[in-house]
Amino acid sequence: MRAIKNADRSRLIKAAMGEIACDLCVRNIKLLNVFTGDIYSAEVDVLDGVVVRVREEGEEALLPAAEYFDGEGRYLIPGFIDTHMHVESTMMIPENLSRAILPWGTTTICTDPHEIGNVMGLEGIRFMLENAKRSELRQYVLAPSCVPSVPGKEGAGAVFGAEEVGELLDMEGVIGIAEIMDYIGVYNDSPRMHSIIDEGIKRDMYLQGHAPNVRGSELAAYRIGGPESDHESNNGDEVRAKLRAGMHINLRSSSLSGRLNYLVEGCRDLRWKDYVSICTDDVHARDLLTVGHVNNVVKMCIDLGLEPIEVIRMATLNPAREYGFKDLGAIAPGYAADMQLVDNLDGGRPYAVFMGGRLIAKEGRYLGKDKPEGGMSFPNTVNIPQIRSAEDFRLRVPEGHKGDTITVNVLKPNEDNAKYKGLKPMELPVKDGCVDISGHPELCFVASVNRYGSGDMSIAVFADFGLLKGAMASTVSHDSHNLTVVYKDAEDAYKASMELKACGGGVCAVCGDFKDVLELPAGGLMSTETCETIAPHVDALKASIDKITDGTVKVLATAVISLPVVPGYVITDMGIVNGVNQEFAPVFSENM
Amino acid sequence: MRAIKNADRSRLIKAAMGEIACDLCVRNIKLLNVFTGDIYSAEVDVLDGVVVRVREEGEEALLPAAEYFDGEGRYLIPGFIDTHMHVESTMMIPENLSRAILPWGTTTICTDPHEIGNVMGLEGIRFMLENAKRSELRQYVLAPSCVPSVPGKEGAGAVFGAEEVGELLDMEGVIGIAEIMDYIGVYNDSPRMHSIIDEGIKRDMYLQGHAPNVRGSELAAYRIGGPESDHESNNGDEVRAKLRAGMHINLRSSSLSGRLNYLVEGCRDLRWKDYVSICTDDVHARDLLTVGHVNNVVKMCIDLGLEPIEVIRMATLNPAREYGFKDLGAIAPGYAADMQLVDNLDGGRPYAVFMGGRLIAKEGRYLGKDKPEGGMSFPNTVNIPQIRSAEDFRLRVPEGHKGDTITVNVLKPNEDNAKYKGLKPMELPVKDGCVDISGHPELCFVASVNRYGSGDMSIAVFADFGLLKGAMASTVSHDSHNLTVVYKDAEDAYKASMELKACGGGVCAVCGDFKDVLELPAGGLMSTETCETIAPHVDALKASIDKITDGTVKVLATAVISLPVVPGYVITDMGIVNGVNQEFAPVFSENM
Repeated sequence: MRAIKNADRSRLIKAAMGEIACDLCVRNIKLLNVFTGDIYSAEVDVLDGVVVRVREEGEEALLPAAEYFDGEGRYLIPGFIDTHMHVESTMMIPENLSRAILPWGTTTICTDPHEIGNVMGLEGIRFMLENAKRSELRQYVLAPSCVPSVPGKEGAGAVFGAEEVGELLDMEGVIGIAEIMDYIGVYNDSPRMHSIIDEGIKRDMYLQGHAPNVRGSELAAYRIGGPESDHESNNGDEVRAKLRAGMHINLRSSSLSGRLNYLVEGCRDLRWKDYVSICTDDVHARDLLTVGHVNNVVKMCIDLGLEPIEVIRMATLNPAREYGFKDLGAIAPGYAADMQLVDNLDGGRPYAVFMGGRLIAKEGRYLGKDKPEGGMSFPNTVNIPQIRSAEDFRLRVPEGHKGDTITVNVLKPNEDNAKYKGLKPMELPVKDGCVDISGHPELCFVASVNRYGSGDMSIAVFADFGLLKGAMASTVSHDSHNLTVVYKDAEDAYKASMELKACGGGVCAVCGDFKDVLELPAGGLMSTETCETIAPHVDALKASIDKITDGTVKVLATAVISLPVVPGYVITDMGIVNGVNQEFAPVFSENM
Repeated sequence: MRAIKNADRSRLIKAAMGEIACDLCVRNIKLLNVFTGDIYSAEVDVLDGVVVRVREEGEEALLPAAEYFDGEGRYLIPGFIDTHMHVESTMMIPENLSRAILPWGTTTICTDPHEIGNVMGLEGIRFMLENAKRSELRQYVLAPSCVPSVPGKEGAGAVFGAEEVGELLDMEGVIGIAEIMDYIGVYNDSPRMHSIIDEGIKRDMYLQGHAPNVRGSELAAYRIGGPESDHESNNGDEVRAKLRAGMHINLRSSSLSGRLNYLVEGCRDLRWKDYVSICTDDVHARDLLTVGHVNNVVKMCIDLGLEPIEVIRMATLNPAREYGFKDLGAIAPGYAADMQLVDNLDGGRPYAVFMGGRLIAKEGRYLGKDKPEGGMSFPNTVNIPQIRSAEDFRLRVPEGHKGDTITVNVLKPNEDNAKYKGLKPMELPVKDGCVDISGHPELCFVASVNRYGSGDMSIAVFADFGLLKGAMASTVSHDSHNLTVVYKDAEDAYKASMELKACGGGVCAVCGDFKDVLELPAGGLMSTETCETIAPHVDALKASIDKITDGTVKVLATAVISLPVVPGYVITDMGIVNGVNQEFAPVFSENM
């Protein structure tokens, strides 16, 4: 596969032969050659965005270049390639993301527009592809494979079967199938996953995996099923087992996940690391402003003891080969001139970044377009006719229930693993036909409201969330991105819902007359603002949330309690779901 | 790209999950994992020719297999992949070649049917593809890029332009463009090479290179032109320069070329060797009987000091990745069960070879089909109407030449490099209007006779060939494979020609009533016999040749004096050609 399309090969050949002048010569540099691991003095000639020649010491240019850039003795390394990320997690649209990550040296991203796919279906993915064209960053898309994550257990804005995935794979800029998360479906050979993967195989495209804790016979079956990579291992043994099975391991460190040390452990003593690459998965705007992007994972890997040259290869050539790109990830004749000048091989912020031979960032400053094109209008995707008043947020006891109390299955963090929720039956008072939690400061309500017009919603009781008063609501809520509301007070829940309905989605905190809304009009997932605007707003919202919580609650805490593939109990618009066996559980205990 | 077609993925998944029994379990082995470099005890389960699971110690099979093979503690490694070879050089047709090389552990070959392409065009390549289907060996074909090697300087049986190459690339089993030898055409961007390479690029196919001594600006231009690999370097520096330019280096050791030590030198100290693989290029039948195939190059690389595990990867996983195969070159779930059991990691003859999970050779003995299918009939490709009598082999002086002598441009080995021929003017007697070499024991005649019906032929004088009497003739004569005859006596030349015309081509030695003919009826290049029959016949022919030569003349000595891309003077059916600038030189010196 070639990233460079429509290059005039004849011009490039002539430039290499010294018959026509180059656009740019980057000189006075130490080149890191990612094919050989050599570092040497060189000058790099570029024409039409392509490297035409790397001249080593003693090799003179045959013609002067139109422009020179003095590297002042710095290292020149290829731009970084992110093997797996969700643009939506940054809360930026592709056009704005480009401005944020190019200064950190990332020049190519392979994205899973899984979130917008769940909300807006093919239309959403077309938007991502179209909007990405406005950016200088190379943005490739993989077709989301699991929309919705668990059919029949959540109501999403779209359902992708083989037909939709096939249609996506035929779009320009789509280069494979994105993280195949339904690993159970793959190793049990469900017709749905089988037919979706068939679409990738028949086009000979890359099949990205996602298989936490999958080992032994299941891992072999998953591998045979098609997926070629994984970024979800939980320890070094798991990494090693997957490498032995021929999978590419994507070392991930995201704003959500901090298990990089385990991943690194699995490949530290490897004789060869060419099946290891790097991904960021989910990165938040604040991190993009402060620590960066792929460079930050590079830095962490080096801090964990991997060799810098090896790690840089994991972020450049290895990802390119994983995807089958023949002209990305290296600085050599015929390769895209995506390059960065760095002071040290340590993942620090690059001094300068070249994108297709054009200086696109210097000393952290983005030098591309003055401002985003903007001007997009988005359909309001928050369609919640079932919410007419605060009454709709009250948890009513079943018809015919007698007595002053009722036993409720409370969602509660497991003692052994606070991350996943168990169900604990609790006897709670009944007041005016509704469950009353007023005597339980540790409890709140949680509602999952279908926002695609189905009218579904469910309400449950949640323990130890940290909410003290008011309500938090979010239309970012993996993976169906229904409206999730966590609340003490039904009035506040209603107000929060109406706020998000009005602006087309976002995240908000409400308490009486107080409100703070982060508007995310693009599918209820992304802002149209740039990173510099979003990050402080997220910080401000965090401060607002702190006012109504015990201070431990993250801005996106409401975004991660609806995903029925995580092992634990979650709530979707259809009810409480056990993520282990993906079966429903009742809100009220059986022995009520 | 996947080698395994039409596999029932559902069955394989079920087998991995232990729901259906496997065909074969290879147990009691030490597995060399080419992804990680680990060696460990394992059992390998196979179904339908595919590895479904590699169970490490402690992992029990979920169901018993239909059959077990006891590895008796040996190493299990993947079958070898040859990145570049010409089947025709073995003098065997693909079906018979399979029998010869499987016992040496080669399970996949990527071939350049360049010779038969020159003789028979697309029809010849279709024959190779069809005949290969009769073999158990995986045989892939690359489309010959330079037929003929130098248009207008030799008459071949076919001319391939972009259209023919495109037609080839669309055939099943064709996976790229074969060694792009016209490197001058590539770096000078000739329309012919540009359009041929376009066919490969637009299909996103592998482009095999061939660029001896190409460096600096030419190398950059060649690389931009498309070719991705090289097997022709002459020293370690050249290897390193090509690796730095992102080329795959194919370490070659063939029956014709002995420069492996230089190639190894160039990658010995490389940090990473994943862009290095192995090829055999041209291997003769005798070598296939005695030292083997890819295994022999593996052995030589190890003898030259490379690490055995690294070298085995160069002959298995690296070639698979070079071509983009996702299911060859390793022993892992979903990979073709092409495997070999070896006593040591040294390139020695394997104890057992499995092809698609089937035991195909044991202790050097081929266990496939009892005998070749045979039964092919070949068109006689030796069409030489211009040869009517011995008179046609006399070197006549130009009309109107006066005097008893004439100055002839004699083809003569260069003093500094015996391999390539210079031209040396010599004054020779004229007798009956013809050049007379009877007083010069070091001289003989050489004729190149077009064998495709054009009627062209040329005759020159050759020094120091080693012929003492009689004639040698061959229809194997790179690359056009015209009839080349080296002779003292025109009568013997005529007889030799008629012998080869009668049998459809081959190699022969003739002297008076004595004759020895190795018949190669398949295009005048290949026998229909097996390796066991061909090799002794070649030995016998060598003894026959020894009788009419000084003993230094190889059987295929006549095959390498017509190729106008070698740097030196050669003779084609159109005349003497200077291989450096590809211009004609006169047979009689200008000052005659």
